[in-house]
Amino acid sequence: MVDSNILKENVGKEASELIKDGQVVGLGTGSTTHHFIRYLGERVRNEELDILGIPTSFQSLILARESGIQLTTLDEYDIDISVDGADEVSPSLDLIKGGGAAHTIEKLVDSSADEFVVIVDDSKMVNSLGAFPVPIEIIPESLRLVKNAVSEMGGIPELRMGIQKDGPVITDNGNFVLDTKFDSIENPYELEIELNTIPGVLENGIFAGITDKVIVGRESGIDVIEK
Amino acid sequence: MVDSNILKENVGKEASELIKDGQVVGLGTGSTTHHFIRYLGERVRNEELDILGIPTSFQSLILARESGIQLTTLDEYDIDISVDGADEVSPSLDLIKGGGAAHTIEKLVDSSADEFVVIVDDSKMVNSLGAFPVPIEIIPESLRLVKNAVSEMGGIPELRMGIQKDGPVITDNGNFVLDTKFDSIENPYELEIELNTIPGVLENGIFAGITDKVIVGRESGIDVIEK
Repeated sequence: MVDSNILKENVGKEASELIKDGQVVGLGTGSTTHHFIRYLGERVRNEELDILGIPTSFQSLILARESGIQLTTLDEYDIDISVDGADEVSPSLDLIKGGGAAHTIEKLVDSSADEFVVIVDDSKMVNSLGAFPVPIEIIPESLRLVKNAVSEMGGIPELRMGIQKDGPVITDNGNFVLDTKFDSIENPYELEIELNTIPGVLENGIFAGITDKVIVGRESGIDVIEK
Repeated sequence: MVDSNILKENVGKEASELIKDGQVVGLGTGSTTHHFIRYLGERVRNEELDILGIPTSFQSLILARESGIQLTTLDEYDIDISVDGADEVSPSLDLIKGGGAAHTIEKLVDSSADEFVVIVDDSKMVNSLGAFPVPIEIIPESLRLVKNAVSEMGGIPELRMGIQKDGPVITDNGNFVLDTKFDSIENPYELEIELNTIPGVLENGIFAGITDKVIVGRESGIDVIEK
């Protein structure tokens, strides 16, 4: 069996070759996107590409700088193409994201891109969303009320706790993450909207209807699924 | 050999018995203080104590609420007694704190208390501070400059990374933690001040000269060291 990190590296490299000179590129977060950013940095150096990156997290910001990718912001530029990982990908290319607690800015970046490309190893491809709990970023003051609200919606929320810090995980935006298990997610689009209407919720990890292309790393090679 | 968690529980319980009816109590953060807060909650229930707690983190805030301790803030009350853990305690009762990334608010609470009591198991007692890297909370924008500044001071800084989130650990205050190893810390008081003069540094984990009492859990029993 192939190490999943090799599959992640394969799709990261593949995606880096999609980027064209002059583009503004959304830089996703996570272990798969890590490879994308590294390979993109290599192309920038070797081919002297004139591209600008817009990071989705402190992680991708630091990594992009180390990789020699020039950075900009959404206030200054629109994004041509965004490349990001996912925790689950459904057959209709809806996603659950947020295992890395970066989904709020990821959604801002990915949904605003002209083209949104998802890169995953094949363990992330599922028949229906929901085995992975939906990460919901909430403002700290809203903890009890949002837990009540998502419980009433049939979810089982759990406050994500830190390991390298005491107490809850704090996101790059200073907030909490409620990992919320739903029995089955039949309509991701509706659940995405419903969760975001709860006061205190900043953003949730369902990304419905915005994926243009998924690059899947399998032992047998790379598979590209277009919307 | 006794499990260190039992030693932590012993000192947590011992400290809970120091609290008097009517007091305002600083509630430290971490695995040792966890026991203190639990036992204090028991006393509040059993003895109907009228005390107010001031938490030092989201962790202690959530735990205190669960334990039935009524909370207040530093804006409303001064603190009679604060009880907190430490990562290292020197013979002169100077401390390194911040392994749990909560040292900024801990210092605010602990240093303002009339009495500051530290509870530790005996593995935290050291001959001189510095085997444990000094956690320095910095604003994200200052990362490169503060790393340069502490390196020039002889420190070896490392950005603390998250495990339950991608990228760096974010503190309850929305900031980064630079764990910084110094060869030896001969004058904790001076280093504490020097680190805090670096622009971008919010607070560091050296607590020099503010400890009134240390309760140490040992296999042989409990040891109390007064300043």
